[in-house]
Amino acid sequence: MDDDRYLLVSADGHAGPPAWVYRGYLERRYHERFDAHQAELEALREMTRTTDTGFASRFEEDTVDGGLSAAYDSDVRSAKLDGEGVAVEVLFPDADVLGTGRVASSPFGSGLASGRDSEPELVLAGARAHNRWLADFCAAEPLRRIGVAIVPITVDVDAAVAEIRAADELGLKGVMIPTRWFDAPAYHEPVYEPVWATCAELGMVLHTHSGAGPADYDVGPGFLPIYATEAWWWAARPLWVLLWSGVFERHPGLRYVIAENGAWWVPDQIQKMDEKYHGGHNTKKFGDVFRQQLSMPPSAYLDRNIFLAASTPGGDDLARRHQIGVGNILWGNDFPHPEGTFPYTRERVRLAFRDIPVEETGRMLGLNSVGVYDLDVEALAPLVARIGPRVSEVHGDVPLQELPMELAS
Amino acid sequence: MDDDRYLLVSADGHAGPPAWVYRGYLERRYHERFDAHQAELEALREMTRTTDTGFASRFEEDTVDGGLSAAYDSDVRSAKLDGEGVAVEVLFPDADVLGTGRVASSPFGSGLASGRDSEPELVLAGARAHNRWLADFCAAEPLRRIGVAIVPITVDVDAAVAEIRAADELGLKGVMIPTRWFDAPAYHEPVYEPVWATCAELGMVLHTHSGAGPADYDVGPGFLPIYATEAWWWAARPLWVLLWSGVFERHPGLRYVIAENGAWWVPDQIQKMDEKYHGGHNTKKFGDVFRQQLSMPPSAYLDRNIFLAASTPGGDDLARRHQIGVGNILWGNDFPHPEGTFPYTRERVRLAFRDIPVEETGRMLGLNSVGVYDLDVEALAPLVARIGPRVSEVHGDVPLQELPMELAS
Repeated sequence: MDDDRYLLVSADGHAGPPAWVYRGYLERRYHERFDAHQAELEALREMTRTTDTGFASRFEEDTVDGGLSAAYDSDVRSAKLDGEGVAVEVLFPDADVLGTGRVASSPFGSGLASGRDSEPELVLAGARAHNRWLADFCAAEPLRRIGVAIVPITVDVDAAVAEIRAADELGLKGVMIPTRWFDAPAYHEPVYEPVWATCAELGMVLHTHSGAGPADYDVGPGFLPIYATEAWWWAARPLWVLLWSGVFERHPGLRYVIAENGAWWVPDQIQKMDEKYHGGHNTKKFGDVFRQQLSMPPSAYLDRNIFLAASTPGGDDLARRHQIGVGNILWGNDFPHPEGTFPYTRERVRLAFRDIPVEETGRMLGLNSVGVYDLDVEALAPLVARIGPRVSEVHGDVPLQELPMELAS
Repeated sequence: MDDDRYLLVSADGHAGPPAWVYRGYLERRYHERFDAHQAELEALREMTRTTDTGFASRFEEDTVDGGLSAAYDSDVRSAKLDGEGVAVEVLFPDADVLGTGRVASSPFGSGLASGRDSEPELVLAGARAHNRWLADFCAAEPLRRIGVAIVPITVDVDAAVAEIRAADELGLKGVMIPTRWFDAPAYHEPVYEPVWATCAELGMVLHTHSGAGPADYDVGPGFLPIYATEAWWWAARPLWVLLWSGVFERHPGLRYVIAENGAWWVPDQIQKMDEKYHGGHNTKKFGDVFRQQLSMPPSAYLDRNIFLAASTPGGDDLARRHQIGVGNILWGNDFPHPEGTFPYTRERVRLAFRDIPVEETGRMLGLNSVGVYDLDVEALAPLVARIGPRVSEVHGDVPLQELPMELAS
């Protein structure tokens, strides 16, 4: 056992190149609009900088460059991940949330915050550019990189379905849809059925990722704290909208991953949904509407179809793992975001998993992701043997590097 | 101890008269519009009836008339509450949720679902009519009835402030604002400051009550289950919006009650808010915005200013009472709604509180409400001595009337 190493799969990584690289992946007719949009973003960045009290700049100093060159430089990324002990990553867009501008966000707002205030044609063009770049980036390390295509289904379902097929042909393994539908039809509506059907047909894993900003209230006292308090709910919402509308009933093989949104909230929400399904007193007056789309209680779909990429899981996420389902939690390190564990992934894994049984730890750190993304464990074995954190290191008493105070919490 | 009885205060009751009575309380110039609106409601009722699988009609049969004449007949109400063991009630609008039309909802949609799709002038007129009727209804039993005025602050802040003062003069003790602001400014915005200030000045208790329907998505598969799953969140939302924007910092004496929304969700939400306030790793990049409006952690405002009128509390609500605050939970029976405990309040109180210490039970069942609404315990003593459930009955082994299966859950 002493020599066993964990296969670490980060189910939440971010990658994206500088703007001039994205430009090269964009169809030429969008270049002028792209340059204008980049200029707007630069103005926004100036605003953001004023709220930094030093944490962001300290993070960059501590980590030499905040890991940002790893966002697009294949060799740098692999070297850094080797150091962190991470064998495989699932890659989402928008690597730079520090607002430095050295790495671009996905063109035309097509990334994490997609879904609002963007011209449909531009968002689709931006998504295509990112997906093409990402396919190239993943091709450089095909065993270690799982690319998630951006698919803005809220702007055009037909175009979205075409992009899912294109992404599949490019070798990408998943699809990220906007976390919020804003003024578009919500995800229970039949108009999206071709999206779910295409994902199920191709085995493309469906994803939402936290990140869409506040949208139904304006700036005022407490604006940002209110947003931060609510963000989990907006990012969790597609779960019950898809589930109650029967998407997982119609597509038993569809896998859906909710990324970077913790997992602590799952037990209460699913338990309340099960109560309604079984016909609790409070909902009796509604009749049998809770069983119209479903043949099983909501918790059964959670178990079968839904996975929580609970990046850098905290105490609540792991303490509730048996209520959530040990097989449904995917660890992630959110590299290279400053709220992630870089450059202290080994230490943070130990802090979080030290007292959790080895078998459960192994599943949450990587083996669950092996199942979700059909990874080749055998081919990964030599890499894991070289860089994977030892079981004895995660659960033992070996002193580890001390964490800077502000990263320890 | 055997002879001690609990003072039961239902922090969630509903009252309202038939439409023709409301008509008499409305200014004459709105009568024609009122009649037209009632006709629209009748059409809606027809639609609702088709979803009843028998529960609603069985409830009416079981309870003779579903308690609906108690919604407006003072003597009937007092007699029924005597039977239930309830000494005092906090009264919200909209007694009839069965859609029978025998009792009207508050005129022009000014009641529980207020805030959307209504003409401002009509909503205000409807609220005034309800408040005047309610004041008369409460005056018939001043010790036992606490009236909560409807104040549609989202349609007109100046008119709302005038209505709060008018309600205070009418002897009403609280103010119910719309649970959702829909397209109006959200409750963190300074435009509402006169509302909070007036409530604080007059000692009027601020309320929101669950009930506002889905509004940001359309009818489709799973529509009602999705709504039912989300309802708690929409009704909980004003808590953190008011709290983070500093309303309870600026008005330390303001009391805010969230009615009929359980309390199970409070510990997680408040703990996450405290983490942000204290500067957890995930929010460090935002700087000190979490402390800009507050001098104490969110949990301290919860403790001081916020109360959960967790009607017919379930296992989760009571099991988490120490994390929520035993002093912050107000029992209620939601009379005469079918999801309430009528006509089995004594039995349901026993089922829920049997294993909870007497001192804690006494606070949650009534003494907390005594504090929130400044009730006169001494004057109520003879009534409690006559109708209050005995401590030995709630916690003992005396066989009680058996509950019908479908009401026992």
